[in-house]
Amino acid sequence: MKDFAPYKRRVFYYETDQMGVVHHSNYIRWFEEAREDMMRRSGIDYGEIEARGVMMPVKHVDCDYKSGAKYGESVEIFAFPRYFNGVRLRFAYEIRAVDGTLLVTGQSEHCFIDALSRKPLNLKKRMPECCEILSRLTEIYAEGQSL
Amino acid sequence: MKDFAPYKRRVFYYETDQMGVVHHSNYIRWFEEAREDMMRRSGIDYGEIEARGVMMPVKHVDCDYKSGAKYGESVEIFAFPRYFNGVRLRFAYEIRAVDGTLLVTGQSEHCFIDALSRKPLNLKKRMPECCEILSRLTEIYAEGQSL
Amino acid sequence: MKDFAPYKRRVFYYETDQMGVVHHSNYIRWFEEAREDMMRRSGIDYGEIEARGVMMPVKHVDCDYKSGAKYGESVEIFAFPRYFNGVRLRFAYEIRAVDGTLLVTGQSEHCFIDALSRKPLNLKKRMPECCEILSRLTEIYAEGQSL
Amino acid sequence: MKDFAPYKRRVFYYETDQMGVVHHSNYIRWFEEAREDMMRRSGIDYGEIEARGVMMPVKHVDCDYKSGAKYGESVEIFAFPRYFNGVRLRFAYEIRAVDGTLLVTGQSEHCFIDALSRKPLNLKKRMPECCEILSRLTEIYAEGQSL
Repeated sequence: MKDFAPYKRRVFYYETDQMGVVHHSNYIRWFEEAREDMMRRSGIDYGEIEARGVMMPVKHVDCDYKSGAKYGESVEIFAFPRYFNGVRLRFAYEIRAVDGTLLVTGQSEHCFIDALSRKPLNLKKRMPECCEILSRLTEIYAEGQSL
Repeated sequence: MKDFAPYKRRVFYYETDQMGVVHHSNYIRWFEEAREDMMRRSGIDYGEIEARGVMMPVKHVDCDYKSGAKYGESVEIFAFPRYFNGVRLRFAYEIRAVDGTLLVTGQSEHCFIDALSRKPLNLKKRMPECCEILSRLTEIYAEGQSL
Repeated sequence: MKDFAPYKRRVFYYETDQMGVVHHSNYIRWFEEAREDMMRRSGIDYGEIEARGVMMPVKHVDCDYKSGAKYGESVEIFAFPRYFNGVRLRFAYEIRAVDGTLLVTGQSEHCFIDALSRKPLNLKKRMPECCEILSRLTEIYAEGQSL
Repeated sequence: MKDFAPYKRRVFYYETDQMGVVHHSNYIRWFEEAREDMMRRSGIDYGEIEARGVMMPVKHVDCDYKSGAKYGESVEIFAFPRYFNGVRLRFAYEIRAVDGTLLVTGQSEHCFIDALSRKPLNLKKRMPECCEILSRLTEIYAEGQSL
């Protein structure tokens, strides 16, 4: 389950707004950081995916804000692969303070497109080895969930 | 219905990412621009709200991406007040290209807090005149919808 | 001299930081907005430059901060073409509050590269019509300065 | 000299622009990350400085761009305290790829203000212990430079 270890990072000053906490748009960026970190640790380098002519645009995102992260504090961002069928990939996220307090939850949904034609594609045909990893991760996650 | 006239702006270069379109987190920022512009046109200056000791943090946001906005193009962002009860305020958004193509839809939900105590408050007690405007706007919008 | 009319925009909430003013990195982004707006008004669309295979990366930027811009206020950003020789292009900037107060000054320097090879190029060979405009603008500006 | 060990971080996707490299404004933000990390490792927590009613706004920044950082690559950001007299603090920066290639150099200059009055102050009176650290750091750096 180490694939699901959180991505850790500190809150930067430029991410705060005059409310004194992180601006709500930045958590969406942290989701991206955590998602790509989680994939990298599992053997999928998103940079390599793009280098091979495939892009993974975001089709949907939602985010619930419980409490604001503050400048300088360390946060843990958990990215869980929830669903994958070769055409759609969904992640769930939890952002927690170091003491475990839940700050933000959210989800993102992605499709896969050809970088040149910008048309949707099935990743199973284009990158089968990458699909195996994503399928395995969603299974591991689902099993962990059902316990 | 002129309150619901769209907020117009151009796409900035720094808002694009290496996919060649606007990064998905930036549309959340455009929602904010359009929401505050719409409120300002209706007589509610968010800066003044904060100056009077009230903040309006985001509790929820969701966003569906149909097509990416491109650098230099002009976009129209429609912000509609969907629900308001003094404690919660919900907006719906549509981002369209100048030719009418729907690029992004989304929603945001807000509460009101005291700037010092950071505790939730009912805007009806604190800013009745502001509440009247928000209530009227949601009614106008609902009527327009029911036509 | 209408080419040198300022670019106007409002300060967005997400551009502030917890100091209660615009984060210093964002003025660099405003320089970009004003530079491209000024070029567009003069007949040079940067999007078209890139579409024709030329990029104009930033080689240098400097910025002096006199006073911070505040959320909601309107600012005027003046972008002046200071120097152009086909290979290098330099702009100077002034950001002012609506009442004329000087907030920020700065400069940026740019070169031109081929989008594919990423090698420097002389714009005079590649886009002579664009060079004529830039040369004229620097002359007009220099004359205005010498008055 | 371990205080001058670089701050390391990866390039995030949302930091790139459609030129395919990091947008030039983001390096200014990396300077901030590295500066605060360097101060923290030396015993100065900027969050604590603000908590004690002092702010350290940026008065000047300059940046020279040699080569663009790419998505996914790891970079090292060196932040060196160059000058400090209690009223002004200057840092120099170098951003390097992991293989040592110099990507960006720059400088920032800061003053100190009272958080309430927003008036300049001499840090020697307000935070002598913090001044000792900053003075020592500039000396260590100057000695290293003179070798």
